[in-house]
Order: sequence, then structure tokens, then C-alpha cells
Amino acid sequence: MTKQAEGADERPARGRGRRPADEVRADVFRVVGEILLQEGIADLTFERVARLSGVSKTTLHKWWPSKGSLALDGYFHAVQETLAFEDTGDIRADLTSQLRAFARIMTRTPAGRVVTELIGQSQTDENLATAFRSLYSSERRRLAGERLLRAREQGQIRDEVDVQVLVDQLWGAVYHRLLIPDEPVTDDFVVALVSNLIDGIAPSPGTP
Amino acid sequence: MTKQAEGADERPARGRGRRPADEVRADVFRVVGEILLQEGIADLTFERVARLSGVSKTTLHKWWPSKGSLALDGYFHAVQETLAFEDTGDIRADLTSQLRAFARIMTRTPAGRVVTELIGQSQTDENLATAFRSLYSSERRRLAGERLLRAREQGQIRDEVDVQVLVDQLWGAVYHRLLIPDEPVTDDFVVALVSNLIDGIAPSPGTP
Repeated sequence: MTKQAEGADERPARGRGRRPADEVRADVFRVVGEILLQEGIADLTFERVARLSGVSKTTLHKWWPSKGSLALDGYFHAVQETLAFEDTGDIRADLTSQLRAFARIMTRTPAGRVVTELIGQSQTDENLATAFRSLYSSERRRLAGERLLRAREQGQIRDEVDVQVLVDQLWGAVYHRLLIPDEPVTDDFVVALVSNLIDGIAPSPGTP
Repeated sequence: MTKQAEGADERPARGRGRRPADEVRADVFRVVGEILLQEGIADLTFERVARLSGVSKTTLHKWWPSKGSLALDGYFHAVQETLAFEDTGDIRADLTSQLRAFARIMTRTPAGRVVTELIGQSQTDENLATAFRSLYSSERRRLAGERLLRAREQGQIRDEVDVQVLVDQLWGAVYHRLLIPDEPVTDDFVVALVSNLIDGIAPSPGTP
């Protein structure tokens, strides 16, 4: 984070008049995303986000009532582009590349630990659990579902398949290895997740 | 739990001589399992287990250094029979019935909450995470792997399939819905988990 030094010239100082809310939120998301992807959740404080984004702590607290909601909203926006669902017309290729990007973020950046700790804490913190679902997981589920539905419409997935189940068998399977690390998240694993579903695991596919 | 009242006559009192370790452990597992499946982890204390099992707190603490390890070991043994992997020769039927039993325990008994809370806490508690893997998940993974390997040997699963990936796409997918409950664990879900993998999701199975 070298933004602090650069920030003074780049951002309007507080009190110079009201900036559009979208612009303010974008600044906050960028700062939160950088902290989470480069450092981790321990380094995320309202104090620091206020300093680095030029947004008052009062405003931050008004929009994000807890550190968890600030982290989740910032994380969602930070990974939105990297985790976008491409549509090259080939569902196998598109799922594999998206899952690779997801696995990379989860295993090679501090964000993986941030997310698993938030999931962990949300098992006993109902407010955090609600924030996790509304600010992160349900929206990621919706985006994955959209891409899978398009593949179904294009005839790459059978009509009767409930695409939401596939979300659990692809990304959910990765979360399982992250949360209970008996086995590692490797590239072979990611490739197998997709091919097991698309090709099926039976020797003579289609045999009832 | 009515065992306390019954217990006095049924179990050798403490100090009447040493019972075989296996017998003592079986008593402890039964008591811990009953508490977890009927009440939950809040009601599990060394004090109470000692009282209900007739095993001294000193012995309990010697064998299980933490409440987490006592809960996990007890839970593993409590569900061992219900979650056994049948072999009728039909992997689709056997997986579906095992997953139904698993889903039932996780959604209809307090054990579901016990397990998700232990997974949650293990994200920030390294000792608990180690205990979870060694006393529970790695052993469940091994048992599932054995059944799946047998199906592969019988020609019901393709030779090149890594059966450990299937563990994440079946039980891991259920854990995903339990830990991040955007979608419910229903019977349709369980059936779809198995058929998506066995039949594949592509319309003309086998098409590259």
C-alpha cells in the first residue's frame, strides 16, 4: 500500500464539498480490495480505510455497519473483474478458466484466508452470515447461474439440470478443500471438477 | 438424556478396578454421541461426560486434550454406523442412500450445527483444525474413497477418475450449502449431486 503517500493530490480532501456517492464508494472498494488482496483482514480497519480513501469514518460506518460488511462489499468489488464469467461459447473452457482464477485468488493471495475466516466466523455470527450471503455469495451464485443457464440454452448442458447444484459441485467443492484442507487445491483438481460433470464419471456415458 | 438416572446400576463405579480401555472409550463415545445428536455442543462438558460415563475427568483429559477433540472423536463414532458405505453393487443407489443419511443428520439433528461450528472455529484455531482432520474428516474421506474405488474396480466409474475429487463434489457440495446457506439441502439436491456426476451434464454424453 503506497496509496497513502500518493493520495493527497489524487483525491479531493474531505470537506471540499460532496462527491457523488458512487465515486466515494468506488474509492472505498479500491482501498479495501487492495488491503484484503495484499495484506489480509487483520490490517483492515475503519481508521485506515478512512485515511487511505479520504472518506470520513462517519460515512464509512453509516454505509457499512461492521468491519465484516465493509470487507465483504470491498472484496466482492475487488474480485469482480478477475472472477467475471467469460462467454467464448465453450462452457468447458470458460468454467475451467474461471475456476482457475478463483483457485488462484483463494490459494495465492491473503484473500483466501479472509474468505475462509469470514465463512468460519459466520457460523456463530448471524449478522455476519447475513452480510456474507447478501453482499457476496448470493451474488456470485447468481452470476455463475447466469453463465450456466446460457450454456444450457446453447445446448451444452442438459435441459433438466438444475444449474444451482453445479455451483456447489464446482465452487463449493473448492471451498470444501479450502475449509477442510485434507487435500490440496491443484490445477488437476480444477480440471477434474469440470470434466467429471461434463463428461460424467461412468465408463459408458448415458448408460442408465 | 435419561442415562444419568439409569447409570448407577449399569456401569461399574469408579475405583472398582480398571476396566479395559476399549470398554471405557466405548462408554465415552456413546455418551458424547448422545449429547451431540440430541442436544448440541453447548451441553457437552467434561464434567457431564465424566458423570454420565463413569469415567474420571482425569482420564478424559488425558485421552482428549480439548473439548473439540472429545466432540470430534465422539461424533465420528456416533455416526459411524448411520454413515456406513453400503455395497449393494450399485454405486448410484449406494451413494444416494448414504448422502441421504448424511443430509438427514446434518439438517435434522443438532449435530449439523455442531459440525459446521467446529469447521467454522477451525478456521482460526489450528489445533482444532488438526483434530478435525485427524479425528473426523480424513477418516470419512478414506471410507468414501474405499467405496468409490470399489465401484471403479467394478467398472461403474471410469479408470482415470480421481475418486477423491468426487468426495468434494458430493459431500463437499452438501457442506457448501450448510456453511453458506444460500440454497437448501433438499432430497432433489442429493439426487442431483449423484446423477450430475454419474450421467454427466452434457446432452450427448461422451461428446468431446
